[in-house]
This record gives sequence, structure tokens and C-alpha cells, in this order.
Amino acid sequence: MATESPDVPDPYPEFLAHVRRVSYLNDAGSVLGWDQQVTMPESGTPARSKQSAALSSVTHDLLTDERVGEWLDDLAEADLAADRRAVVREVRREHERAASVPEELVSEISETASNALPVWEQAKAEDDFEAFAPTLEEMVELKREYAAAIDPDRDPYAVLFEEYEPYLGLDTAERVLERLRDELVPLIEEVEASDVDLADPFPGEYDPDTQEKLVRTALDELGYNWERGRLDTAPHPFSTGTQFDARVTTRFDPADPLGALGSTIHEFGHATYTLGLPDDQYGTPLGESRDLSVHESQSRLWENHVGRSRAFAEYFTPRVNDHLATDVSPREFYEAANRIYPDNPIRVEADELTYHMHIILRFEIERDLISGDLDVSEVPAVWNDRMAEYLGVRPEGAGEGCLQDIHWTHGNFGYFPTYSLGSVLAAQLYASAAEEVGGLEEGIREGEFDALHEWLTENVHRHGCRYETDDLVREATGEAFTADHFLEYARRKFGDLYEL
Amino acid sequence: MATESPDVPDPYPEFLAHVRRVSYLNDAGSVLGWDQQVTMPESGTPARSKQSAALSSVTHDLLTDERVGEWLDDLAEADLAADRRAVVREVRREHERAASVPEELVSEISETASNALPVWEQAKAEDDFEAFAPTLEEMVELKREYAAAIDPDRDPYAVLFEEYEPYLGLDTAERVLERLRDELVPLIEEVEASDVDLADPFPGEYDPDTQEKLVRTALDELGYNWERGRLDTAPHPFSTGTQFDARVTTRFDPADPLGALGSTIHEFGHATYTLGLPDDQYGTPLGESRDLSVHESQSRLWENHVGRSRAFAEYFTPRVNDHLATDVSPREFYEAANRIYPDNPIRVEADELTYHMHIILRFEIERDLISGDLDVSEVPAVWNDRMAEYLGVRPEGAGEGCLQDIHWTHGNFGYFPTYSLGSVLAAQLYASAAEEVGGLEEGIREGEFDALHEWLTENVHRHGCRYETDDLVREATGEAFTADHFLEYARRKFGDLYEL
Repeated sequence: MATESPDVPDPYPEFLAHVRRVSYLNDAGSVLGWDQQVTMPESGTPARSKQSAALSSVTHDLLTDERVGEWLDDLAEADLAADRRAVVREVRREHERAASVPEELVSEISETASNALPVWEQAKAEDDFEAFAPTLEEMVELKREYAAAIDPDRDPYAVLFEEYEPYLGLDTAERVLERLRDELVPLIEEVEASDVDLADPFPGEYDPDTQEKLVRTALDELGYNWERGRLDTAPHPFSTGTQFDARVTTRFDPADPLGALGSTIHEFGHATYTLGLPDDQYGTPLGESRDLSVHESQSRLWENHVGRSRAFAEYFTPRVNDHLATDVSPREFYEAANRIYPDNPIRVEADELTYHMHIILRFEIERDLISGDLDVSEVPAVWNDRMAEYLGVRPEGAGEGCLQDIHWTHGNFGYFPTYSLGSVLAAQLYASAAEEVGGLEEGIREGEFDALHEWLTENVHRHGCRYETDDLVREATGEAFTADHFLEYARRKFGDLYEL
Repeated sequence: MATESPDVPDPYPEFLAHVRRVSYLNDAGSVLGWDQQVTMPESGTPARSKQSAALSSVTHDLLTDERVGEWLDDLAEADLAADRRAVVREVRREHERAASVPEELVSEISETASNALPVWEQAKAEDDFEAFAPTLEEMVELKREYAAAIDPDRDPYAVLFEEYEPYLGLDTAERVLERLRDELVPLIEEVEASDVDLADPFPGEYDPDTQEKLVRTALDELGYNWERGRLDTAPHPFSTGTQFDARVTTRFDPADPLGALGSTIHEFGHATYTLGLPDDQYGTPLGESRDLSVHESQSRLWENHVGRSRAFAEYFTPRVNDHLATDVSPREFYEAANRIYPDNPIRVEADELTYHMHIILRFEIERDLISGDLDVSEVPAVWNDRMAEYLGVRPEGAGEGCLQDIHWTHGNFGYFPTYSLGSVLAAQLYASAAEEVGGLEEGIREGEFDALHEWLTENVHRHGCRYETDDLVREATGEAFTADHFLEYARRKFGDLYEL
């Protein structure tokens, strides 16, 4: 569709074949990652690290190949149709980022992260922040260099944030997170002050086989496409794959069957996004999912707006009772799924509401670390003070405080905000779906999820990376990215549950 | 260790880093293959094919990179230590093969094989050789071109055979296979004429879970290193991996528990070879296994010389009885594991003796197809006549005749002989081990397999590709590759069992 003159060969097909190759190799790397976390025997690590590194390295070489720069320059001159323009835009961004960071710096970060892992694990186990501090300092410094290599003239934290969320802008993220902080802190205080005690009707222990049958039933009913997926267990649940093969993992805690159910539905949400990408665009940006906030919006939408809804409780509670041999009412299930407990200092165990305070805390600290406004040595004190301020809880040691997450050990500064942005977007998308799909809630009460799948596929999944994130949100919902819907949803739901 | 002048940088380290990278990517491809056969949902095929093809393609590019040719030329001039010479020898062979075949031909063969698969599947199901004949003709022609690209002056079948077994020589293979034919046909006739009926003490059905517990017990007792491996099921059992992670697959037929046991021990044998390769040479030819005959010798040694021995029967039968709730004597187990049944036309179901007639038949036909002495249209008649001649059985249709195996559909001409060569080498190696390890058989009777593992690791595994195959055999056994030991073993064992 490029309107080149007939004498000049259209570079697009060769460019696209190269792009696909890079994408296929990236996906091969994901298969290695899945295997490592799900099936690989532990002693396989040394070989797997080398295989994954070799694969990353050839993929990086292909992405930064100078021919890619030449094709991009040629295509910048061409009169391309919208889809091709989107492909060129996405590849240019990836290429320029990859090409601007020296390979030695990439290797140094990767090596530092590898070496940091056991240091972090031990420091966490021993509540010993001092032992981890030099490593964290080194990583902060390296990531500053990384940001400067990409763009020395911009706020380094903004540059890092764009690695995970390129098209919303850090200013939008900051605005949204500040608003969440300002409005959720008082809401949480109200909840804490409430006399209402929500039901906690699963006091027993439920063996993993029983829980697995329950979560498989949930996946069946929600419409997981087993022909293009599978369920396994992993220490840290995740979802990965392509539109042809999008897998889900979960984990089972005997004392917490709702934990496994929620986590499975969360990963199912991620998988639905991947499975909704168009088959015929596999390997191109139009067949790839948008970035982390949008991905997280899909997992949170299914986990919270469906899985923790009253309608779903009415539909699914009999199945829970069948599997767990309990006698829980839909109301009790609904309450159990929505209990708020600010006194837990661990992010991954947090409830739907206080979760965001954990994120905001991390966001504030990592932004100040990267800018240099905060010294590494100050992290534990700031962390603990802010936990007390936001949630009224003070971690007993660094292990359940500032050392609890792996992200900084990996050098992932700028990642945390996307979790909350995902929740915010989930509420915005769900509100639009509810407005446009007649009887959405009534459907869920009957176990009818097709209409929601269709709306999400039509408005989000099938576009892949066609639109920049902010445009995708506007196309899907008719308005800019906003926290309005999330805050309204949270106030309504928890106001009702806690009789505020 | 290269004695270059100090002014010229030693190219070896850079060369070796490149070689390792190729090897890591090959191993990444094996992970993708394992996943495809064991865990991948069926609908994942289109994406997986593209991922695997991209990985093969970049690996091929790296292997045929002109720098590799330059390094090899430089190193050919250098005075290298023996280990480095071996590395250079192996890489040169791979590089020259890969570089001599035009990429278009590689792609054409790969594409033809892909397209051939459904044609073959349908033709096999419908006993319709005519439907497959044009595809087979095309593949024969392509593989002739392939051989000519590598060396236009040599027998093309010999060139193809060396793809799977580079260092034994087709003349040796031919001599050994002819001798097997000449000596096994009369032995099989004697067995058929015998009045002895061996025991068949497993007439029941045994559910897969029960069988799995049995084969896991066998792997435990034989000394499988679970920290570096795992057991799964696959439609066609195989073993794959590295010295850090060597996995085994099996399959279960309710009516045939000994089938699963034998197949598991066979794949375990392959895995022991991989696990015996030196960790510190991972990624170099010294950390990679020798070719198919040697690999197959390890699987056959454990499957037949251990698993089908009287000593193992004495040790393992009580465990079989425990798991299967049977009351079989060691003698009955031994007889059941060694029954000869020439009337089965299917290779993969054949017994230890008649198996080789299936191989010889295929070898003769594929050799004549490649040389042009046999026309594709003649294959079914020649196949059926020779089955009648060698085994006294005539397949009822092409599905259980010349269409039963997938090898030719994949273009793998020259592969079949390595199965029999592996059995022959297994007997030769086992005879040496028995001579050098005191009380080997007594040990097996007590469940003591360490001494055998050690002998095999010491004499075969730890060398990787240090020696060419014929030298490896000579180093390990003190004599050239020979069928003497296999024929002696077969005559003694089956002569005894069938009272010949």
C-alpha cells in the first residue's frame, strides 16, 4: 500500500519479515521463561541462563541491525496506510531504545541483576537492609546511566517509566496516583472506623487438588480457551504466550482458597488479552499486546470487576460449595472476596483497596531514588514512615518492608505504577462495557461472559499496538484516561459493604 | 595453548564464544521441541513453527558466518592442544556442511517436509501409497540435491548417512548390517521353529497411574538424577536436554506395562549419556554427545543388556509385583521381556531380535532410492516381499507397511541404520564393561548400578566429541567397531531362552 514509485522496491515486506523474526525469537524466549518457572528441574539454571542470554543477544542484534535504521528512514519518507504507520512507529521506538543503550551497559545491568538476586534473597530473609544497600545503590546508578543513554535531556525516571508504559506519560501517571492517594487514604480510614465485620467463611484447609478443580471450573465457566492454553502451578503466578498458546499459572495455599481463585482469574484476564490478538498479525506489533497498564487492566477487570462482583458471587458460590464442601452463601462469598485489611504490610497479599497505597509508596520512593532526592540509606525509614502514614501499619523488619519485592533487584524502576494504572483503566473500561453492553451484570449472574469478552476483544484486544495507549483508551471509552471510574466504583462498593 | 606469536591475538577465545552461542541457541531450540511434544496446547503449532524456524535460521546464520571460516583457517595453522583440535574438527565439519548447502534448498526441504506431513498421515490412515508417492519422489530428489551440494563426487547416500553418523563410514555400517541380516535370519527361523513358549504373565490392564509409579521406581533404582531431569508422557517417547537438565518421556498402554518400562529405561539410557557430559564444557563439542549410533548404544545398553537381563529380572520383579499387584516370578518376567514375535510388521513394536530386520529392510530400500536403483513406485512391493523373506510376515496394507514410519516424510534418509548400529555398539560396550568391572551382573542382581554408570561415564560420556566415533569405540573397548559381541549375546540369550 506504500505509494512508492514503481522503480524503487517497497522496503516494507523485507522490513516486516525482519520484524517478525525478532518477534518470533522474543516469543521463543518466553517459552524458555515459562519452562524455567514451571517445568525445569532446578539444576537446569546454569544452562538455561546461557540459552536465554544467547537468545536475548541475537534478538538485540537483529533489532539494532543498521538495516532496520535504514528501512525506518526509507519508510518515514513513504506514504503509508495507517496500519503500516503504526507498525513503523512501534518498531522505531523499540529500535531506537535498543540502539541507544551501549551493549556493555545492557550486559552490566543484566549481570548486576543476576548477582543481586542471592544478595537480595539473603538480605530479605535476614531483615538486613545494610547488606543489600550497596547493590541497590549500584543498580540505581546503572539505571540512571541507562536512562541518560536513551535521552540525557529528560527526567530519567520518566524515561524508565516509558520502558513499561510508553504512551500514557509520567505526568498522567503522577496525577492519577496522587489522586488515588488523596482519595483512598480517607476511604481506607472510614473502612477501618466502620463497625461492619465482613464474613470470613473459609476457615478450613483445602488441599491443592481440590482447589485446582475449583479454579479449573472457574476457567471453564469464564470461557478460557483450553485448546490454546493450559493451567500449571508456579511459585509466582504469571501468564505468558501468544494468541495461539496463552498459558496461565497459579499457586495454592491450603488456608486461602480465594487467593488461588483470585490469582487464577487475574492471570486468565491477562490470557484473554493475548488470545484476543489477531492470528493473522502474529509477529507484528498489530498482533502484540499494548504495554503493561493495558495488560494489567485486563487482569484486574476480570479479577475485580467480574470475580469480586456480587453478580459473580451469586453465580459461582454454588460451584465453590460443591468443590470445597462448604455451605457458604453468595453474600458471604462476596464479603469474603472483598475484605479490607490495611494491617498486612505485604503488597502481594493486599486487598483491592489498600493495594494502591503499597504501589504509591513504591512509586514515590523509586522516583526520588532515581532523581537523587532520596539516598539509598534513607529507604527503610521513609518506607516504614509512609506505611504508617498511609495504612497505619509499620513493618517489623526490612524483609516485610522495603526488601519484600524483587523489582528493584532486577533493575525494574518505573514498573510499579503500571499495576495501579491497570486497576484504574480496568474500572474505566468496565464502566464503558457496562454502558454499551445491555444486561452485563444480569449476564454475569447467569454465567454469561461472552458479551464482555466480545466487547473487550472488539475495543481493546483486536487492535494490538495499532493505537498508542492514550488513543486506545479514548477509542474504547470515549474519554481520556481517568481515575473517576475507579474511585466511583471503590466508593460505591466499599461504601456499601462497610455501610459508610 | 595455541603457540601463536605474541603479536597475533589468539583467535580461539572469540571463536569458542561464538561456538558456544550457536550451541546455546540449538539447546534453546530443543526446549521449544520438548515443549511442543509434551506441554504445548495443540493450537500452538502455527506460532511454534515460526519460532522454531526463526531460531534455526539465526543459528544457521551464525554457524555459516564467514568469520567462522576465517577463524577455522587461522586455527588450522595454529599448533593446538588435542582438545582444541577436537573442537576445531567438529566445528569445521558442521560449518562446512551448513555452508555448502544453499539456504533455498534447506528451506525447500523444510517446507516440503511440513507439507508432506498431512499427506503422509492421510495416506497411512487410508493405506494409500499412491497418494504419498509424488511427495516421496520429491523428497528423494531434494535429498539427492542436498547430498550433491555437500559433495557431488561421492555416493549421495553415504553423504546423507554421515549427517547422522559422521565417523563410522557407510562401508562399516553396510558390512555390519549385512552380517546381521545373514546371521539373524537363520537365528529367527530357529526361534520360530522352537517348541518353547515363553511366559506372557501380564494379561491384564494396568492403569497409567499405576504404570507411572512403576517406571518412576525403575528410574529411582537405576539412578536417574531427578535434580537434573523429569519424566513426562509424549505420543512418541524421546529424551532431550543438556548435562544440566536431561529429560525423559514415556507413554502408557494399559495392556502393555512392559512396553512402558522398556521405553522408559531406553530413554533413561539416552539421558544418562547427556548427564555424563562434563558441566564445564557445556556449549562446546567437548560437552556434547557423539552422534546417533553412540547415543543409541547408551539407550539400548540400559534397555536390553540391563533391563532385559536375568539379573535385573531377579532384582526388579518384586517391585513389579508390588506395583501391578501381580505374582510373577523373575523367570516369567525375564521371559516376558524377551519374547520373539516375528509376525508383527510394526518396527516400533518389534522385539530385540527381529527389530534389526525392520532396520535392514529400510536401509536397503532407502539406499536404493537415493542411488536411483529403486523407483518410488516399486517401494511397496519390495517392502512386502522382503518382510516376507526376512520375517515371514506380509503387511496387510501400506499403513502397516512402507508408510508406517515418519522418517522419510521428514527427509531423514540415512537415519535408520543408526538404530541397529547402536544395538551393536551397546553389546560391544557392555562386554567391555563386564570384563573390566568385577561382579557387574552380581551387582545388577542386587540393584547396584553405580559401577556401570561410572564405567560408561569414564569411557564414553565424559569425552563428549573429543574422539571421532571409531576412535571412541577403540578407546573404550580396545577394538574396532564390531558385530561380534552383539551376535554372540543374541545367540547365547535366545539360544538359552528358546532351547536352540
